[in-house]
Amino acid sequence: MATDQAQSEAAETDTYDEFEQRVQRIANVSNAAGILRWDQEVVMPDEGTPARAKQLSTLSSIGHELLTADETGDLLAELEGETTESAREDGETASSDLNDEQAAVVREVRRRYDRATSVPQDLVEEISETTANAHPTWKQAKEENDFEQFAPTLEKLIELKREYAEHIDPDADPYAVLFAEYEPYLDLEDAERVLERLRDQLVPLIDAIDDSEAEIETDAFAGTFEDDDQEALARDVLDSLGYDWSRGRLDTAPHPFSSGTQFDARVTTRFEEDDLLGSITSTIHEFGHANYTLGLPDEGYGTPLGESRDLSVHESQSRLWENHVGRSRPFWEHFLPIARERFSSLEDVTAAEAYEAANQVYDDNLIRVEADELTYHLHIVIRFEIERDLISGDLEVEDVPEVWNDKYEEYLGVRPETDAEGCLQDIHWSHGSFGYFPTYSLGSVLAAQLYDAAEDELGDLDDDIRAGEFDDLNGWLRENVHQHGCKYTTPNLIEAASGEAFTADYFLEYVEEKYGELYDLEEY
Amino acid sequence: MATDQAQSEAAETDTYDEFEQRVQRIANVSNAAGILRWDQEVVMPDEGTPARAKQLSTLSSIGHELLTADETGDLLAELEGETTESAREDGETASSDLNDEQAAVVREVRRRYDRATSVPQDLVEEISETTANAHPTWKQAKEENDFEQFAPTLEKLIELKREYAEHIDPDADPYAVLFAEYEPYLDLEDAERVLERLRDQLVPLIDAIDDSEAEIETDAFAGTFEDDDQEALARDVLDSLGYDWSRGRLDTAPHPFSSGTQFDARVTTRFEEDDLLGSITSTIHEFGHANYTLGLPDEGYGTPLGESRDLSVHESQSRLWENHVGRSRPFWEHFLPIARERFSSLEDVTAAEAYEAANQVYDDNLIRVEADELTYHLHIVIRFEIERDLISGDLEVEDVPEVWNDKYEEYLGVRPETDAEGCLQDIHWSHGSFGYFPTYSLGSVLAAQLYDAAEDELGDLDDDIRAGEFDDLNGWLRENVHQHGCKYTTPNLIEAASGEAFTADYFLEYVEEKYGELYDLEEY
Repeated sequence: MATDQAQSEAAETDTYDEFEQRVQRIANVSNAAGILRWDQEVVMPDEGTPARAKQLSTLSSIGHELLTADETGDLLAELEGETTESAREDGETASSDLNDEQAAVVREVRRRYDRATSVPQDLVEEISETTANAHPTWKQAKEENDFEQFAPTLEKLIELKREYAEHIDPDADPYAVLFAEYEPYLDLEDAERVLERLRDQLVPLIDAIDDSEAEIETDAFAGTFEDDDQEALARDVLDSLGYDWSRGRLDTAPHPFSSGTQFDARVTTRFEEDDLLGSITSTIHEFGHANYTLGLPDEGYGTPLGESRDLSVHESQSRLWENHVGRSRPFWEHFLPIARERFSSLEDVTAAEAYEAANQVYDDNLIRVEADELTYHLHIVIRFEIERDLISGDLEVEDVPEVWNDKYEEYLGVRPETDAEGCLQDIHWSHGSFGYFPTYSLGSVLAAQLYDAAEDELGDLDDDIRAGEFDDLNGWLRENVHQHGCKYTTPNLIEAASGEAFTADYFLEYVEEKYGELYDLEEY
Repeated sequence: MATDQAQSEAAETDTYDEFEQRVQRIANVSNAAGILRWDQEVVMPDEGTPARAKQLSTLSSIGHELLTADETGDLLAELEGETTESAREDGETASSDLNDEQAAVVREVRRRYDRATSVPQDLVEEISETTANAHPTWKQAKEENDFEQFAPTLEKLIELKREYAEHIDPDADPYAVLFAEYEPYLDLEDAERVLERLRDQLVPLIDAIDDSEAEIETDAFAGTFEDDDQEALARDVLDSLGYDWSRGRLDTAPHPFSSGTQFDARVTTRFEEDDLLGSITSTIHEFGHANYTLGLPDEGYGTPLGESRDLSVHESQSRLWENHVGRSRPFWEHFLPIARERFSSLEDVTAAEAYEAANQVYDDNLIRVEADELTYHLHIVIRFEIERDLISGDLEVEDVPEVWNDKYEEYLGVRPETDAEGCLQDIHWSHGSFGYFPTYSLGSVLAAQLYDAAEDELGDLDDDIRAGEFDDLNGWLRENVHQHGCKYTTPNLIEAASGEAFTADYFLEYVEEKYGELYDLEEY
């Protein structure tokens, strides 16, 4: 016969097991939807959309129902009775019967449950319907270069999203609530401070580059390159970085992305015949995302322990590989010979020239997705400042084009002549995604902090990269970032990995040194 | 204000709408699972299996829960109160407030609901677990050519499946209940009569072929053929037959299949360098399946009105295209010039030779999947007779190898020397699929009946086929078979399309005429 204690432990185990099964079920539905979306972007025939939309909508509502069901709330409450408050907050010290990992799962699911249950289903559906209709409206407005066509929709979306935020936390800054949708554990104030530092320090740096008389090689990758050869080279890139093909694949998509789980994390890229460099950097970027996913622990599959942290951390992984590795000089010393095997036209290009071409600063570019590593962040800062003011009500929708253009002139010294190449260029707001843009820049900033921490421990990585040897770097990322899944909150993860709080120091240091040298800038 | 009658109609509409939404939801989950399975067979990386198995298991159990929920039963009961008994049985005359289509949806879902709710969940799970383990056991037994390794598992599966059938209908022949899993509306007795006629008439026909001194061209497709060129030719085949690429695609899979919905019905095929003919006929076969799916009405998506009838009807579509079109003389007159464009080695082959090669009878072949159009059915009859006797208890598992070999000797004049090329060759029993095999032959039989009915209405189709003109034939199939989805039961569909009950007459007439001529047989 079991002792009383054993019986009581068994009961607790049963509750957690039941909870875990429920969480895994939700994850399986969500991961199934992920496959359907991959399929839709990559292989689905054109006319498949109506059925696919219904399948995705059903999976989404089933997932929502499973998450918001009373059973989920009851299980959470029961398990939290066994968890101390502090364990719930940082997931590190559970003084109860739940171990650290279990407490972290409870913390993450609680967060999702609270958000999902606080918003009325009617509003969720209205937002979903409005964004579905917003997309074609935005697209047409962009094509016809006519912001006024999109303005009423944008107005409506802002209103709905304010209402949404109000339901989640009536006492909080609504923009902070929306930002937390993408980045739940970083304070908006901390993020804002980082973005302000970027603005304040990058504007003069870019000015200095603008004034520089240094001659940067820009034609290293000029020419036309066949799709098939570009694809072969993209596979070379992935081979070289150590992509695990037994758990992944490479395809093309109009807007490259990566998606999946630790068992199956796929990369997409795209090929344009006059942009070989773009396909290489895009492939490396998506490798970074997929590589993070592949580093999540197998045994955590189906719970937050086997899921990636939020957007900034994910973007830190893509940017670290794209910029700190893929845009470094030693990388081109390693990779140029490989590229020459595919393209004899690169025979006379030197690694130094490739490096320069991969890092030229386009100070007259108006389009975010075509921006370089440096000006990119001013594109983000502009969007951040505008969307924050739109949500707070400090900026009216009708004033967006002018404010947008003014900010471009102020920060980047260029003024869009049309809304199509101005405030209509991005899809995000038509999705109702306010608070998303900052995570791109925060990802770059975090990439620099993590890369510095990795070099602190491993020593300078240039020789490794030059030798095409990425195991140490990847091992460090696996150990310090990937394997933890969502066990830690984002600030705790950053602190544990780098030894300090989230900071823009390393990013600014990195770009000032790199571009100071590239553009021969005296004061940098 | 609404009148009372209008209010009452509105209430009924609401009930049906609620029911329909529930049914669509179940279909969306099932179709999502279909995409996941396609992905697994065609594009998933090797190591993706553990996560995929969990995703599929979750979708399957969610679908099962939605179907067997009390709400489904309540809605069915409520709607059936409005439907006459006869309307429920044949779906053609609803004297109630449900129209014919709605009554058919209720009939189909009632059937699925009754079967799903009558089997205890424990048993469903035990069968699922046993078959999951049976697969590797069967595979190893086959590899090691050792039936005894598989025998206990087969025994267990038979026992579980008998129990399963008993729950569904304790008064019925259990094999008939299992057969109805794949072919719900054809009586097993009718099916059995058809299979007996095949056996009784094909055995002497094949004997006569065996004795024939006619010289059939067998080397028309000898040689090696590159995969890429075979793929191009498979696309030519699909182009030629009128496959709608905007709703489909072609890929390769180890075991070719087709799957999807009317919005997205995909074909797979396979290429072996020494078997060009095999890839062509396999592609045409899968086209037939996909083409049926594509002919289902768009507006029926998500309910049985937009779903295909069961296995025999589906197989009739693949066999009609594969055999009556693809193995016809006029088809090769049409297609050989196209094939010669891809393969210059076919330059000296004549259409008559291609036709002969596509129809040679392999009277010493032991393997079902390598069988020709004629001997194939004896392979099926043997399996049918054995599995029927296994389920009834008239045959012991230990005696299967001997009975198998004896029947091969009796019907086909060849005796397997090993179990690997004998009773272990097929995967089906390891899946617990008893009652599945007959639908392959019933499909061929129905194909002949439908093809004859089509020619009755359209006139001889040889000229059309010779001209590569398939619109009339396909139009006839669309109108008489595809567009109805599951509106009619299978016997009603056959009767409506062909003007008579299901019969083997046309198939036997077709093969006797075709092979009598090919092999120069006097009595045929």
